[in-house]
Amino acid sequence: MRSLTPTLEWAGDHLRVLDQTLLPDRVVVRDLRTVDDVVDALRRLVIRGAPAIGVCGAYGVVMGLDQHVRAPAVAGAGPARVRAWLEPVAARLSGARPTAVNLGWAVGRTAAAAAAGGTATEARAFALAEAERIREADVRSCRLIGEHGRDEMASVRRVLTHCNAGRLATAGWGTALGVVYAKADAGQPVEVFATETRPLLQGARLTAWELGEAGIPVTLLTDGAVGAMMRSGRIEAVVVGCDRVATNGDTANKIGTYTCALAAQAHGVPFYVAGPISSFDPVLATGDGIEIEVRGEEEVRRVGGAVVAAPAEVWNPAFDVTPGALVTAFITDVGVLRPPYRESIGAALEEAERLGLR
Amino acid sequence: MRSLTPTLEWAGDHLRVLDQTLLPDRVVVRDLRTVDDVVDALRRLVIRGAPAIGVCGAYGVVMGLDQHVRAPAVAGAGPARVRAWLEPVAARLSGARPTAVNLGWAVGRTAAAAAAGGTATEARAFALAEAERIREADVRSCRLIGEHGRDEMASVRRVLTHCNAGRLATAGWGTALGVVYAKADAGQPVEVFATETRPLLQGARLTAWELGEAGIPVTLLTDGAVGAMMRSGRIEAVVVGCDRVATNGDTANKIGTYTCALAAQAHGVPFYVAGPISSFDPVLATGDGIEIEVRGEEEVRRVGGAVVAAPAEVWNPAFDVTPGALVTAFITDVGVLRPPYRESIGAALEEAERLGLR
Repeated sequence: MRSLTPTLEWAGDHLRVLDQTLLPDRVVVRDLRTVDDVVDALRRLVIRGAPAIGVCGAYGVVMGLDQHVRAPAVAGAGPARVRAWLEPVAARLSGARPTAVNLGWAVGRTAAAAAAGGTATEARAFALAEAERIREADVRSCRLIGEHGRDEMASVRRVLTHCNAGRLATAGWGTALGVVYAKADAGQPVEVFATETRPLLQGARLTAWELGEAGIPVTLLTDGAVGAMMRSGRIEAVVVGCDRVATNGDTANKIGTYTCALAAQAHGVPFYVAGPISSFDPVLATGDGIEIEVRGEEEVRRVGGAVVAAPAEVWNPAFDVTPGALVTAFITDVGVLRPPYRESIGAALEEAERLGLR
Repeated sequence: MRSLTPTLEWAGDHLRVLDQTLLPDRVVVRDLRTVDDVVDALRRLVIRGAPAIGVCGAYGVVMGLDQHVRAPAVAGAGPARVRAWLEPVAARLSGARPTAVNLGWAVGRTAAAAAAGGTATEARAFALAEAERIREADVRSCRLIGEHGRDEMASVRRVLTHCNAGRLATAGWGTALGVVYAKADAGQPVEVFATETRPLLQGARLTAWELGEAGIPVTLLTDGAVGAMMRSGRIEAVVVGCDRVATNGDTANKIGTYTCALAAQAHGVPFYVAGPISSFDPVLATGDGIEIEVRGEEEVRRVGGAVVAAPAEVWNPAFDVTPGALVTAFITDVGVLRPPYRESIGAALEEAERLGLR
């Protein structure tokens, strides 16, 4: 693959993140130097995608400690003082996007690691080590998903995906697109058909951009054209990411995923869901228990700032639920999970617990 | 229903048309006084929808004759001279949108009627009478579709539609939306769920606008949200228009229609196609014979003038084909046609031939 613009990078004392609000028009890397900078970047979706924002939050804790340590008089501050600094920093970072599970989890883990340090300097070192571990685990998890998917889809060349589950959403090369990058990396021919993904156009803006930068052929289509695309016979497999998976395989993902799954089923096209085992919810028996976030009307009414719709009620759910029965297999960091899902997902969750992946 | 802005009106010596390029932002009625005006309005989609542009073309022939008759010296010109005037007028009007069958048909019929007149004044009178007949036939056809649909869907309150098959696409109250207006007209409760219909947003811009003006509740959703909407259990029936129907019921209609049909089938929701019998093609055995127009990439890349997509190939078919097997029934001006379609469509086409509807 070509040299790619990193989604996020730790630069020794600050974070450098690719500003996703400006893509695809402009490629701008922003320096985040303070907790305020990180909170603002998370809130404005400068960086998005559950794994990516978790990693950002973890480094945010390190920057919070740095802001205190920089005052020379307090460099040797003791554990009580460090904990007193950490608490508001962690709360502010976690609160930047309250619904994303990864953010609170990664911030909490990094803050706990820091609190184990005796001095402020030790705390900072422990926090940085933990943030690095979280980032590396995400990179590794993406790589494993990609490799398992490459083996599963060895004979597949033309893949349809929805939304963006790529390197812009993670610290690694992505989940659904991780499979695509793994294929390209191994020299397998691969071509992606990307739905534009209304209302926020993550497919048109982000997936098309990141695949283009990587030199992987990509064809854009509207969400409504998925049925016709399947009927054209060009698609060999669908692969999408996931936001939350129940133990029966019911999958919450970006709105429109379910419509893709129905079209795939009608044409006998395999439908894969790619994601880390941490996206599987052991206490969720079916997708009926997943609360679907309904977002603002303006996302549908407007495109790029311009009003495109007549006055009307708008129904704008952010996610839909695809029944497990429509999923051919789950491609995870602990392997490919196949039906019956109660058994395969149950076993994978136990294995993940054993490996400390959850 | 409330008083509504007419889509098109003959004002004695010119056409008044609602400018659909400005909806929903501005409601502007344009006066078309010359053949040039009509050709320009058709080309720029100031007026669109196959039945509506047919009616416009017919009145365009009248205006073409007026432009000649206005010169006092030629008011009594004979048949040969009239035919010499008509030919280029008809050719220019028909060529404004070469793919729309209705336009060439309506212009040809009106020009033929005019040619039967002895003098220029007679020719003008004959042309006007023919244009009025074409307009009235469209209005009547819409009304019959609406009434048949109202009977068929008497117990249905919440209807999902795709694109715009309403009064903005016809001289009457529309085909798919004709059913909705017929229900409202009879005091039946009715509520519409309109897909935005990317890439040209006819649902968001036109369907939401015209239903809003008529005081009918309408809720807008993205094309990708159709599956989730079906899963929510709120939709009792789908009704869409059609561009061309094969004798086995395979239906070409706006891209995204097939995806709606698949979602309806998955949830046991009836899927109706509404249209005049003139949309059925007696020589087309299956939908495989329908050539699908693939339109420009810019329609997907841009929304309202703004580029919203990264550089990529774009696949932008204007229509898709829904297999007849997914259609619960066709609602036409000659009645409701049910499976098996070879028989019911065949019989309806014979009946239409007998009634002179084709």
